[in-house]
Amino acid sequence: MNIKILIEYDGTGYHGWQRQKNALSIQEVLEDAISSITRETIKIIGAGRTDAKVHAIGQVANFRSNTKIPIEKLPYAINSRLPNDIAVKDAKIVPEDFHAQFSAKSKIYIYRIYNAPFPSPLLRNYTYFFPLALNISAILKALPFFIGTHDFAAFMASGSDVKSTVRKIERLEIHKRQNMDLLEFKIQANGFLYNMVRIIVGTLVEVGLGKIEPEEIKSIIKSKRRENAGRTLPPQGLCLREVIY
Amino acid sequence: MNIKILIEYDGTGYHGWQRQKNALSIQEVLEDAISSITRETIKIIGAGRTDAKVHAIGQVANFRSNTKIPIEKLPYAINSRLPNDIAVKDAKIVPEDFHAQFSAKSKIYIYRIYNAPFPSPLLRNYTYFFPLALNISAILKALPFFIGTHDFAAFMASGSDVKSTVRKIERLEIHKRQNMDLLEFKIQANGFLYNMVRIIVGTLVEVGLGKIEPEEIKSIIKSKRRENAGRTLPPQGLCLREVIY
Repeated sequence: MNIKILIEYDGTGYHGWQRQKNALSIQEVLEDAISSITRETIKIIGAGRTDAKVHAIGQVANFRSNTKIPIEKLPYAINSRLPNDIAVKDAKIVPEDFHAQFSAKSKIYIYRIYNAPFPSPLLRNYTYFFPLALNISAILKALPFFIGTHDFAAFMASGSDVKSTVRKIERLEIHKRQNMDLLEFKIQANGFLYNMVRIIVGTLVEVGLGKIEPEEIKSIIKSKRRENAGRTLPPQGLCLREVIY
Repeated sequence: MNIKILIEYDGTGYHGWQRQKNALSIQEVLEDAISSITRETIKIIGAGRTDAKVHAIGQVANFRSNTKIPIEKLPYAINSRLPNDIAVKDAKIVPEDFHAQFSAKSKIYIYRIYNAPFPSPLLRNYTYFFPLALNISAILKALPFFIGTHDFAAFMASGSDVKSTVRKIERLEIHKRQNMDLLEFKIQANGFLYNMVRIIVGTLVEVGLGKIEPEEIKSIIKSKRRENAGRTLPPQGLCLREVIY
């Protein structure tokens, strides 16, 4: 049968989602934990390949198994073999053709900036610390230019190899948490290019600094040139919030 | 001169605030950092001696120094010598008789419970994970019995040695964070006995489970017997929020 799981993880101690030689990945730790309880060789497919230090509250994955463990007990069984920085929060039997990556309609990522004069030890692994003042109303003006179907080649790490760089951004919001100097960017799209969220938010930070005018976003997208967009922000501010099917 | 500093720290990697042999403390790391920039032997006095794994957003300390570094530059200078799980967020010159511990009028602590069916990897070091359902309205009924000046001997770790176990609780609130399964207890008092917050919240959890009736809090306080109160909750849910002078 085909099993879909919902996963939360703290990416701080991992070299990202994808299994690789000589570096610990979330995928490897999950596959080993599930294999050890089902006594099968488990191969899991993740919805999104998060990078090193990137977190997930709502990562989704699927795998094939003939386990006799009741599906509602499965998260407890898997968690008993996982370190406490990874947890399975749900498991469901899904149709054979469900594929965590290809069946996904859209994904929601959150990028968090701690915008205060001094760094926050408690938020250091979950935010990007940026002490300079940002013009939030300029950022708000820039957001709508990203919405819709565009060629986002300018917002992809150079050297990436994909067939198409066209994606549809369905939502892009900024929330300021009260009393907390915390800027939360929420971005939903039908797919993401490599480093796309981190480059988009990096570009919005330059809008907030007055280095890029909100209206310039249009021409940056049009240019399709990576060097016209802002810099790639560090990974620890990024979190995969939800995968929509 | 007498210098007051405001400190945030992630207590996960430390054996508490107080300097001790053979174990790393916040106090030791701070004293070493300040000493290295002022080139004096610095002795700091903290407002509250937080335990191992307990955090602080608003710890206050004071120390004597003849440093020539301008006071507004001092936090940046100290932070440059601190690991990223400790940060100084403010520094002020205060009157000679200011004492971070004895001058404090009251302190505010937060205790956070993650009350959901599955553990949260992202909150694991900053909350106590408790999966059973809690009756919040019963807890709300119990809160007022703690308010005021009482002998809190029943809510002190046994074996503690203090002159008086009378303290005044000025505020005790519970906040449920929306969409987050997060219960936040906020407690303000003119002083705290050893493990007092962790035992009070542990007792409130038993109220939430129906094992203790809200009205029983009165007789538990009156009894002055530790065994009548609930258990001591683990340290990582606790955070020193603010010290009021």
